[in-house]
Amino acid sequence: MIDHEARRRANQTAFDRLTGASPVLVDVRPAGEVVPGMTPTTILTSGPPHTWPEYTGPQRNALVYGAMYEGLAADEQEAEAKLASGEIQIEPCHHHGCVGSVAGIYTASMPVFVVENTDRGNLGFCNFYEGESSRRLNYGTYGDDVRERLDFVNGVVAGVIGDAVRASGGIELKPMMSRALRLGDELHSRNTAGTLLFTRALFPHLALADQGQADRVRQTLRFLEESDYFFLRLSMAASKVAVDASRGVEGSSLVSTMSLSCNGYGIRVSGLGDEWFVGPDPVVQGHFFDGFTEDDLVWMGGESQVTETAGLGGFAQACAFPLQKYQGGTPEAMIEANLSMYEITVGEHPDYFIPFFRFRGTPTGIDIFKVVETGITPVIDGGLGGRDGGQIGAGILRAPIECFEMAVGAYEARYG
Amino acid sequence: MIDHEARRRANQTAFDRLTGASPVLVDVRPAGEVVPGMTPTTILTSGPPHTWPEYTGPQRNALVYGAMYEGLAADEQEAEAKLASGEIQIEPCHHHGCVGSVAGIYTASMPVFVVENTDRGNLGFCNFYEGESSRRLNYGTYGDDVRERLDFVNGVVAGVIGDAVRASGGIELKPMMSRALRLGDELHSRNTAGTLLFTRALFPHLALADQGQADRVRQTLRFLEESDYFFLRLSMAASKVAVDASRGVEGSSLVSTMSLSCNGYGIRVSGLGDEWFVGPDPVVQGHFFDGFTEDDLVWMGGESQVTETAGLGGFAQACAFPLQKYQGGTPEAMIEANLSMYEITVGEHPDYFIPFFRFRGTPTGIDIFKVVETGITPVIDGGLGGRDGGQIGAGILRAPIECFEMAVGAYEARYG
Repeated sequence: MIDHEARRRANQTAFDRLTGASPVLVDVRPAGEVVPGMTPTTILTSGPPHTWPEYTGPQRNALVYGAMYEGLAADEQEAEAKLASGEIQIEPCHHHGCVGSVAGIYTASMPVFVVENTDRGNLGFCNFYEGESSRRLNYGTYGDDVRERLDFVNGVVAGVIGDAVRASGGIELKPMMSRALRLGDELHSRNTAGTLLFTRALFPHLALADQGQADRVRQTLRFLEESDYFFLRLSMAASKVAVDASRGVEGSSLVSTMSLSCNGYGIRVSGLGDEWFVGPDPVVQGHFFDGFTEDDLVWMGGESQVTETAGLGGFAQACAFPLQKYQGGTPEAMIEANLSMYEITVGEHPDYFIPFFRFRGTPTGIDIFKVVETGITPVIDGGLGGRDGGQIGAGILRAPIECFEMAVGAYEARYG
Repeated sequence: MIDHEARRRANQTAFDRLTGASPVLVDVRPAGEVVPGMTPTTILTSGPPHTWPEYTGPQRNALVYGAMYEGLAADEQEAEAKLASGEIQIEPCHHHGCVGSVAGIYTASMPVFVVENTDRGNLGFCNFYEGESSRRLNYGTYGDDVRERLDFVNGVVAGVIGDAVRASGGIELKPMMSRALRLGDELHSRNTAGTLLFTRALFPHLALADQGQADRVRQTLRFLEESDYFFLRLSMAASKVAVDASRGVEGSSLVSTMSLSCNGYGIRVSGLGDEWFVGPDPVVQGHFFDGFTEDDLVWMGGESQVTETAGLGGFAQACAFPLQKYQGGTPEAMIEANLSMYEITVGEHPDYFIPFFRFRGTPTGIDIFKVVETGITPVIDGGLGGRDGGQIGAGILRAPIECFEMAVGAYEARYG
């Protein structure tokens, strides 16, 4: 039995851990070396845990392609057989300190950003952005083009950046993210400023690279210049250590995980342990690329909404008016959506500010009770995937209310 | 005699030349080598032309200090004597393809950005930002600290950047400026994004610097990282080639110059040749740094408002909500001020857009008739100087209506 005041105090504790997180990028390493529980035959993917038969469509394909990319299977048939037999193990990203972008495929050889929360010591990881092509492994497509780009990013780009990060002694992400919000990012669907700031932070540690490295450095700089989305993976890893820090507070009704798979939408709650509350697909207001419509849309996973869980993305939309062009909507709609998030959160972020709201802190710490009481569901900025794989647009997703209703039910069962 | 329709056509021509300018940074060179009419004993300063006795206060001091910095005089007495005798010649920046920030002191040895308008072939120049200290030569202060910083900027920073610019083959400024507006700059009082984008454009040409240069490169990068205002001088030079391109269109009533000195506010008009229309001081709404009030304010020149003349700065305020903190005001007031500029301009810039106004082009091309008819005067974002020199705040300036009334009188006298 927990009363209203005790819940408020528990939520304050969870909020303080969430917003007090101090994420520092300390290394870039292969997932197999640093991600807890990652074996050479593990593949991580987005969403709540599912059995192999439950994965369908592009997310299923992405798992198969991940196995092939990692060299665990020579072709699709072999991959399917090994995934079915358990010779290759599928695990949810969120159970391993990782967060997946769209399908969110991690294999052991893939380099990941290693982010440490110096406030509480926990680690979080995210793999690398594949580049501007709409054909990417994390959107469930594969082929020579996708494989070659992955090899370039995981080899050249991650190698050069890893060297620079180690030379730097660690890069503090929070001041960079706070600044990016003043430069028009919301750090989910807009990461242009974050990418620029990160590139500049790397540069002093690249400039002195020896001549033998010059070509690789130049290629990496070109990739960063072409990849406005690059910083998203750092925003995700930084948000992951923050939300993980807020988990496990007895009596807290704050959301600590929001995650999508091909098989529904799931949340976890700080005071409700490891349990997932899985509801239906999100509701979407999309802006589709030329040649695509809502009929082409298919859900294939997505955990970049860890940024919203940490007070960014849709919760900081009014920082990023240029986004209206990419994901549809008007400045007025963005303001209204952003303001409504104050109705379902317990506080304002002490380090992330919205200039248009006179530097008010972003709404942070989603309370399942507030969502259910108001009927207002979290606003999530996101990319949209197509039935044949690939990105077909971007838009605003609404987390389904059913997850929050289930969580409230479980909370009441547990705490009375 | 020119009728309304002929004036409209003339203004369209001037507007097209203004907005069609394509500024490219092609070099960095000492002013004495590239600025037309610049001799070893010339000092350029902001504002309409004045005789030596007309210069007072910090702007007069800045001229004296400029002479000392250039080694034209050993001390203040000698400088005063040579300025009085004409042995050292004072010239307005605007008459020499230059634009001055605040007092705007140019001496022959000072490096300048060389910007070419590839649309019409004209050149424009601007010298370098002195850094974040409130004590700067362009704010009428001097001393060992000021001189050392000038030596560092003019030696190390301009040297490293000049090498990189030449290695790059030229850097197109317009796409960079257009992009900076989407990243929260208005390119007068906020230049953070422009500075970041410019730094990134330099990177590939710095990365290969030899080891002997590594220290200078590192110092330059640190200076760029600390100097969010750095890009202003490029925004000014880019705007200068644009407004100069719009000059001399027979019958045009568009403003081609707005400029401030210690001795009043002056404008020039496209169709009215070289004549200056000089009125009283601007009206100011300031946000003063701790310890200063409006009583400390003194006018000591300023031509960075060339950015407003070209459709930026106050005319793009709604791009830059973070500015409210620096120069006072609210987002609502910024929106209103920005919108009002559409009342006194003849068009919308085809390359500079305001995301918050749903990507409407910035109001561009100030028409003296529209200013006089509406009574709405141009809104200018600017730094504020103190009676003892130095920067004491920032705020919004209004160009005085008298200049526009005089210009309308002259226009009617000339064109009937």
